[in-house]
Amino acid sequence: MARIAPLSGFPEWLPQERIVEQHVLETLQRVYELHGFSSLETRAVEPLDQLLRKGEIDKEVYLLRRMQAEEGEGDKGLGLHFDLTVPFARYVLERAGHLEFPYRRYQIQKVWRGERPQEGRYREFTQADIDIVDRDELAFHHEVELPLVVLEAFAALPFPAATMHVNNRKLAEGFYRGVGAADTALVLRAVDKLDKVGPDKVRAQLLELGLTDAAADACLALAEITAPDASFAERVQALGVTDPLLDEGLEELVRVIEAAAAAAPGRLVADLKIARGLDYYTGTVYETVLHGHEDLGSVCSGGRYDALASDGKTTYPGVGVSIGVSRVLGRLFRTGAVQASRAVPTAVLVAVNDEADRTASNQVAAALRGRGIPTEVAPSAAKFGKQIKHADRRGIPYVWFLSDEGHSVKDLRTGDQVAADPAAWSPPAQDLRPTISRHEETPQ
Amino acid sequence: MARIAPLSGFPEWLPQERIVEQHVLETLQRVYELHGFSSLETRAVEPLDQLLRKGEIDKEVYLLRRMQAEEGEGDKGLGLHFDLTVPFARYVLERAGHLEFPYRRYQIQKVWRGERPQEGRYREFTQADIDIVDRDELAFHHEVELPLVVLEAFAALPFPAATMHVNNRKLAEGFYRGVGAADTALVLRAVDKLDKVGPDKVRAQLLELGLTDAAADACLALAEITAPDASFAERVQALGVTDPLLDEGLEELVRVIEAAAAAAPGRLVADLKIARGLDYYTGTVYETVLHGHEDLGSVCSGGRYDALASDGKTTYPGVGVSIGVSRVLGRLFRTGAVQASRAVPTAVLVAVNDEADRTASNQVAAALRGRGIPTEVAPSAAKFGKQIKHADRRGIPYVWFLSDEGHSVKDLRTGDQVAADPAAWSPPAQDLRPTISRHEETPQ
Repeated sequence: MARIAPLSGFPEWLPQERIVEQHVLETLQRVYELHGFSSLETRAVEPLDQLLRKGEIDKEVYLLRRMQAEEGEGDKGLGLHFDLTVPFARYVLERAGHLEFPYRRYQIQKVWRGERPQEGRYREFTQADIDIVDRDELAFHHEVELPLVVLEAFAALPFPAATMHVNNRKLAEGFYRGVGAADTALVLRAVDKLDKVGPDKVRAQLLELGLTDAAADACLALAEITAPDASFAERVQALGVTDPLLDEGLEELVRVIEAAAAAAPGRLVADLKIARGLDYYTGTVYETVLHGHEDLGSVCSGGRYDALASDGKTTYPGVGVSIGVSRVLGRLFRTGAVQASRAVPTAVLVAVNDEADRTASNQVAAALRGRGIPTEVAPSAAKFGKQIKHADRRGIPYVWFLSDEGHSVKDLRTGDQVAADPAAWSPPAQDLRPTISRHEETPQ
Repeated sequence: MARIAPLSGFPEWLPQERIVEQHVLETLQRVYELHGFSSLETRAVEPLDQLLRKGEIDKEVYLLRRMQAEEGEGDKGLGLHFDLTVPFARYVLERAGHLEFPYRRYQIQKVWRGERPQEGRYREFTQADIDIVDRDELAFHHEVELPLVVLEAFAALPFPAATMHVNNRKLAEGFYRGVGAADTALVLRAVDKLDKVGPDKVRAQLLELGLTDAAADACLALAEITAPDASFAERVQALGVTDPLLDEGLEELVRVIEAAAAAAPGRLVADLKIARGLDYYTGTVYETVLHGHEDLGSVCSGGRYDALASDGKTTYPGVGVSIGVSRVLGRLFRTGAVQASRAVPTAVLVAVNDEADRTASNQVAAALRGRGIPTEVAPSAAKFGKQIKHADRRGIPYVWFLSDEGHSVKDLRTGDQVAADPAAWSPPAQDLRPTISRHEETPQ
């Protein structure tokens, strides 16, 4: 049993951290289900040809091989999924006949990427995806609805405040077409690098793509526009570019911004440099940054796509985003920004007077559990001081004592001890389950 | 996008099946947390040398390789875990300094085995494990406690009735020693095959191991003993074998049986043929069969072990069992034995009068959600008949209508339509979430 050491890139939480993660995942589940999204879990593996359809990410795939694979069976071309979009697309095609459309699903699972580990980059991590997919056509209003659902979830999470940055591919593509770009996709890709390489390099690249000086300047001016309300539209129009697709994109983005300004004021901004590299987005695109953790990049991204999947006859357009749960939690644990009030679900530890009396303590515990109170019995009839320490070390707030004169329960935080009846006593509601608190963060 | 087909051995549930699975996993979580068990999730991968420690299962391991592994990096010897015991043991050793002992944990995760797929054998499946592990010594009372927790969970699950069969390794080993067996482990392994090969072949094998005719008969007679109460002890004693370890095992098994007879009458039986092949069990051993599904074998197995893990200085003894969740669900779905009342979490669909009025419907939905009622808004302002059909196909019980004369809500099952206020109306509690029902099973 030598060589027990953590594997770099494969995070594992301690019990009190896992309680925070459970709270985060249950919050997402609760909000998503309130909005009628169904849970989906897909298998962890996909055929390699499915995984490589997107092209760019092939180097990150973990391949599988049965240890005792037989001759000829060899490598059947299975790999671990690196996101939840590829398996979702495959699932929709495979089960379309059994699904009702529009299909609203959330999916919270581990994904794996064979990357070189580095701070904030994991090889195994949990993603939480949410998508609405329809058959043939997807109504635009879902592009308005989706960010509102996600912002509602973020507001309920014990995370720092989040701002969602939103753009629209039609707006960008129409604009680039309007300034005379031959290949709008290449312009988009150049602008997508703005934050990384700066405006001078982007400008040079736009000129290389054949744009005039004025056109390149207009593209950079467009990328600078950001606003928490519909005022961005006038600023775009002031750049003097006209194109029907641009108008359509402007109108769509205004609708998203106005709905969010009403439902979640200040949480969503139009940000016209958001490009999202991947080619398959066709409408609204979303990115989300956490205040004070801008260096993490977007922790919740996605957009509208016209073809999640297609079997030749039918196409499935959709809109969705993915939250990088592990990446956020890893950061918040490291900075001590979020904590559980205790390391166990237990609210009450029932003391044991004597090993021969364990049954009496068990009966008290059963009575408390019967009324929904998480309860443990002390593992040994040690001195009470030791039994109290057992509770204290785990953050269990109450210890229950049995005596011939009657039962009593002690609050370890205040030291108060009161008479109590196992058939009637309950802790205050806030002590029933571990609570999650956010703390001032230490500077990065 | 050709070749979309299920992968044999990798089950995926439909939305209404997933709702049943969620209910099952949430029930396990609720019961386990009531008893003070903490959730643990470990990474999916382990170093190969960890996975192969047990010896027997090497052929079932899925190995991982980064697709673009570099020269010399090669195969770092990582594989997917095939159970939750190996990663738990590794986690306990790795994090012992951060854990409080006895450490009570449950762990619900996928595991992978590269087996040839066949009915009821999966390559990817969900296991739900529960263990209590201590440092150096583990008190015997945990062997009494653990099956009571698990039986409480089974009683809350929408599964057919379960019976737990229990034996004790000390009892068996002491007995075999008492009849003069030279190697009690080999006798145990021979008796373990009783159900598979029958008594004649087991008897022949026992004679080959050097047992006398009388000793072999005694071993077979022991294996025939089963009882729902402590009466089994007299029947063992009537076989006339004496050994101190046998006495210890008898006393322990009596304590387990008597506690279960009081807490969960009729759900646990002493069954002295239960052997559990693996060598590491040292005390009580558990197996569980579902009534009407005996052919599935044990769906919940485990026992007491004296060395889950050891780092040379410290040893971690424990007791635990593992529930084969996917195997049970796969069977119950196939026979139609268990069903969710609807395929979505949604309780209410809010109709849309006109696409221009969608905001009014959104506001009703927000009011209902604000009071915890899962609500969707109709995806299109189609004819009401079509909107009702949309709800009906998903099993959504209520449709909400807005009109200038006031709001109303229709129960699609009864056809009743009543006036309703979005700030006040609630569905009956049993309609708030999907409910799970058990059905008469079709014969196998």
